[in-house]
Amino acid sequence: MNDDASQAQDRTHAPDQDHHTPDDGSLSRRSVLRTTAGAAGAAGIAGTGLGLGGLGSGTASAADRRPADAVEPAPESAPARQGATMAGVPFDRRSTVRVGIVGLGNRGGSMIDLFLAVPGVRVVAVCDPVKTKAERAAAKVTAAGQPAPAVYTKGEDDYENLCKRGDIDFVYVATPWDFHFEMAKTAMLNGKHVGVECPIALRLDQLWELVDLSERTRRHCMQLENCCYGRNEMRVLRMAHAGLFGDLLHGAGAYNHDLRGLMFDPDYYEGPWRRLWHTRLRGDLYPNHGFGPVANYMDVNRGDRAVSITSVGSPALGLAEYRRKHMPAGDPSWKETYIESDRTISLVQTAKGRVIRLEHDVSTPHPYSRINSLGGTKGVFEDYPARIYLEPDHTNDQWADFSAYADWDHWLWKEHANPPGGHGGMDYMLVFRLMQCIRLGLAPDFDVYDAATWTAPVPLSHLSIKAKGAPQPIPDFTRGEWRKARSGMDSVKPAE
Amino acid sequence: MNDDASQAQDRTHAPDQDHHTPDDGSLSRRSVLRTTAGAAGAAGIAGTGLGLGGLGSGTASAADRRPADAVEPAPESAPARQGATMAGVPFDRRSTVRVGIVGLGNRGGSMIDLFLAVPGVRVVAVCDPVKTKAERAAAKVTAAGQPAPAVYTKGEDDYENLCKRGDIDFVYVATPWDFHFEMAKTAMLNGKHVGVECPIALRLDQLWELVDLSERTRRHCMQLENCCYGRNEMRVLRMAHAGLFGDLLHGAGAYNHDLRGLMFDPDYYEGPWRRLWHTRLRGDLYPNHGFGPVANYMDVNRGDRAVSITSVGSPALGLAEYRRKHMPAGDPSWKETYIESDRTISLVQTAKGRVIRLEHDVSTPHPYSRINSLGGTKGVFEDYPARIYLEPDHTNDQWADFSAYADWDHWLWKEHANPPGGHGGMDYMLVFRLMQCIRLGLAPDFDVYDAATWTAPVPLSHLSIKAKGAPQPIPDFTRGEWRKARSGMDSVKPAE
Repeated sequence: MNDDASQAQDRTHAPDQDHHTPDDGSLSRRSVLRTTAGAAGAAGIAGTGLGLGGLGSGTASAADRRPADAVEPAPESAPARQGATMAGVPFDRRSTVRVGIVGLGNRGGSMIDLFLAVPGVRVVAVCDPVKTKAERAAAKVTAAGQPAPAVYTKGEDDYENLCKRGDIDFVYVATPWDFHFEMAKTAMLNGKHVGVECPIALRLDQLWELVDLSERTRRHCMQLENCCYGRNEMRVLRMAHAGLFGDLLHGAGAYNHDLRGLMFDPDYYEGPWRRLWHTRLRGDLYPNHGFGPVANYMDVNRGDRAVSITSVGSPALGLAEYRRKHMPAGDPSWKETYIESDRTISLVQTAKGRVIRLEHDVSTPHPYSRINSLGGTKGVFEDYPARIYLEPDHTNDQWADFSAYADWDHWLWKEHANPPGGHGGMDYMLVFRLMQCIRLGLAPDFDVYDAATWTAPVPLSHLSIKAKGAPQPIPDFTRGEWRKARSGMDSVKPAE
Repeated sequence: MNDDASQAQDRTHAPDQDHHTPDDGSLSRRSVLRTTAGAAGAAGIAGTGLGLGGLGSGTASAADRRPADAVEPAPESAPARQGATMAGVPFDRRSTVRVGIVGLGNRGGSMIDLFLAVPGVRVVAVCDPVKTKAERAAAKVTAAGQPAPAVYTKGEDDYENLCKRGDIDFVYVATPWDFHFEMAKTAMLNGKHVGVECPIALRLDQLWELVDLSERTRRHCMQLENCCYGRNEMRVLRMAHAGLFGDLLHGAGAYNHDLRGLMFDPDYYEGPWRRLWHTRLRGDLYPNHGFGPVANYMDVNRGDRAVSITSVGSPALGLAEYRRKHMPAGDPSWKETYIESDRTISLVQTAKGRVIRLEHDVSTPHPYSRINSLGGTKGVFEDYPARIYLEPDHTNDQWADFSAYADWDHWLWKEHANPPGGHGGMDYMLVFRLMQCIRLGLAPDFDVYDAATWTAPVPLSHLSIKAKGAPQPIPDFTRGEWRKARSGMDSVKPAE
């Protein structure tokens, strides 16, 4: 395979606007990720457990092999609490944060540069079944002047050995979606805080399991939602919390990103795993980039709560159409039946009655947009491109220039004017801030409740679409803690 | 009162983008329209019949006085057909179209200029309880070189006498919403084709009654949705029908127009009738401007059908907040309790599985937008401002200039490059084309089924919000005729 991160990034349509999880080259893992779910797809029976059957053989439960509809508990039933809340729980202070990285493909292989760029961080272990990737990562660590890290390359379960080490504070997971849940779980069970790329899991019972495990193990489990750290997002957040939008009424976020080319590129993802999710689910596969920032604006889990979601999906035509035009006869993709709606639109309502619209569309031609809008009694912001209208500043019914509000930038963006790394700098902000919170013994900007809330639309949008748009309750993963106002992304600069 | 159309238009925020119905100055009517429904509103019981009780005393049924929830039949139950379909039924050819106009306020008082500007049209009667308005309209008719029209000014029921005349082919209704249904009904019962400003009615049973009456009387009953004739809308329509968007997947339309200032202006609307609707309903009061054009793109009622709608509404804070800042203590508005969601978002699904998003927001600060978007397997269009991305023309993930597609303009816009009248010319296109269809004996571009479909979100969004987002079936007003493809707005230029 010839798929290092830089080459792969050159092939993206919007290389600076999204991130992708790496491929994994081990034969056994490859065979798992190549399992075509066409039959289930054709029957319209979505098996969210498919593709998970072969991994983490020691830990994967039988539930992983059951189809989604069989294993989903009724969303409103919260299991009994097994530990105390993790809301607002600070990290143990660490003068040096010792990091282990699992997955060194497109995403992990570039994020490692940022971990190495932040002061007070050591990368002590790296893991990828593709030996060349792990070794390339290890070379980056020594080139940065740090001791050579331990390298884990022995098959798909070797991440468990990384997690068992005694010298790691935080595990970063950047693997295909199929592995996120098991890896997060394993990290916490071995006493590590863990940060996982999106989506952290794809089933509701898995989200509950992560919440319970975080509370039991007293370890933070975070979905590393980089878009929350976008410059515009953080500026809108501060303006919203300062009352410039008045009472908040509605917001919207999206992952509208044409990924057709990447999904059918044999050199970008390792095998069809990314595409296969389009044979399994009809809903919003990737709500986090849109939901996270808007949830922050509205203090979701910090004074408000996401209560219900209703979703409607368009026909699923885009991927098959792309395949017809671009893929040769006999390509394995011809066995796949895509059921994922080309455009999924969801309406989330909060306890305070606010409305959040989420969109997902990765299979049709369109310019990239996360929408990122917020409206209140005093005005409205919309992104792509950024524009604003706020009373009393604006009264002429015309959009105004958002750059006039640069004074409202978050302190992170004021301190780091030209951050290194991809996605316009928000990746660096995320890594810097997370490492800072661990170094200084602060509570993280977001926690397992946010991870679960921002990801819940994956299974719930699928269920709502199956139920012809019937609203689905979103569980209160905080078990009542959401009523307490507390700070989140809107941090003030801590004294070092 | 001092509210002629030109003065009133000067006070609008976006005078060229919307229209408003006129006020009516008769004392009795004024008292009806001033009835504050605050008590019902405060209890959350929306009475869509309120405000209708006093008008058309000879024809208004008892049902008009019952609250909405009591009189709404189950949406899925189609009453038995009483006549033959009106789909595709041509007008009787008329060398000169004789028009009667009811309502000469802001809207009717400017639209009359367009009726007088179109060749082959005579305005033979005008009606408004405010004598000065009716007489000003009559003077316009004679100034245009036509015989003096009959003038009906004797109270709120005098429109019935206009409808009874034997020399009228078409009645145009531009009165407050509260009167639309009764006036449409009366016109048809007197053998006249009728065109009504938006919304044509506000209850589901009224929509069915208009459908049945159109079929029984063999008269067309049209909601005069001017936005369907917008230049961008007609261009997108032609491009969509030519296949440039591929298979259609999703669209969106809105009435996001900040009307707070107008609604509280004592000189713009006559009394609080426009504001009072915000004390009665929680849903989308004005879906037509957004729904009509997108329904046309998707051939709704001409090959596809709107099947269900789910709606979510934000809190209702905007009007009360505006009142707090701008209205003096003791103003009658302080008795009103606003329940209408500041932003209502609805998701309509069609028989072919397409998704149409509708938004309504007239009570918060924001720039004007009807959204007007369309997406398919080959690309996407969005308006405000107009921008497009279509394969194979565009491949760089960036919006492109919509003006490059000017060749796709509808023949109406090619023929009438600088149309007179308001709203950028679309009003003229509507009047010209409608009069042309009657003159030449063609079927109208839209009919009673479209009027009912485009208006159905008014009562159904209210019901869906009451039911916490539960989807509501949209009736098949065509009773099966929707399956037949037929032309609508995408006309070819007829031989004169």
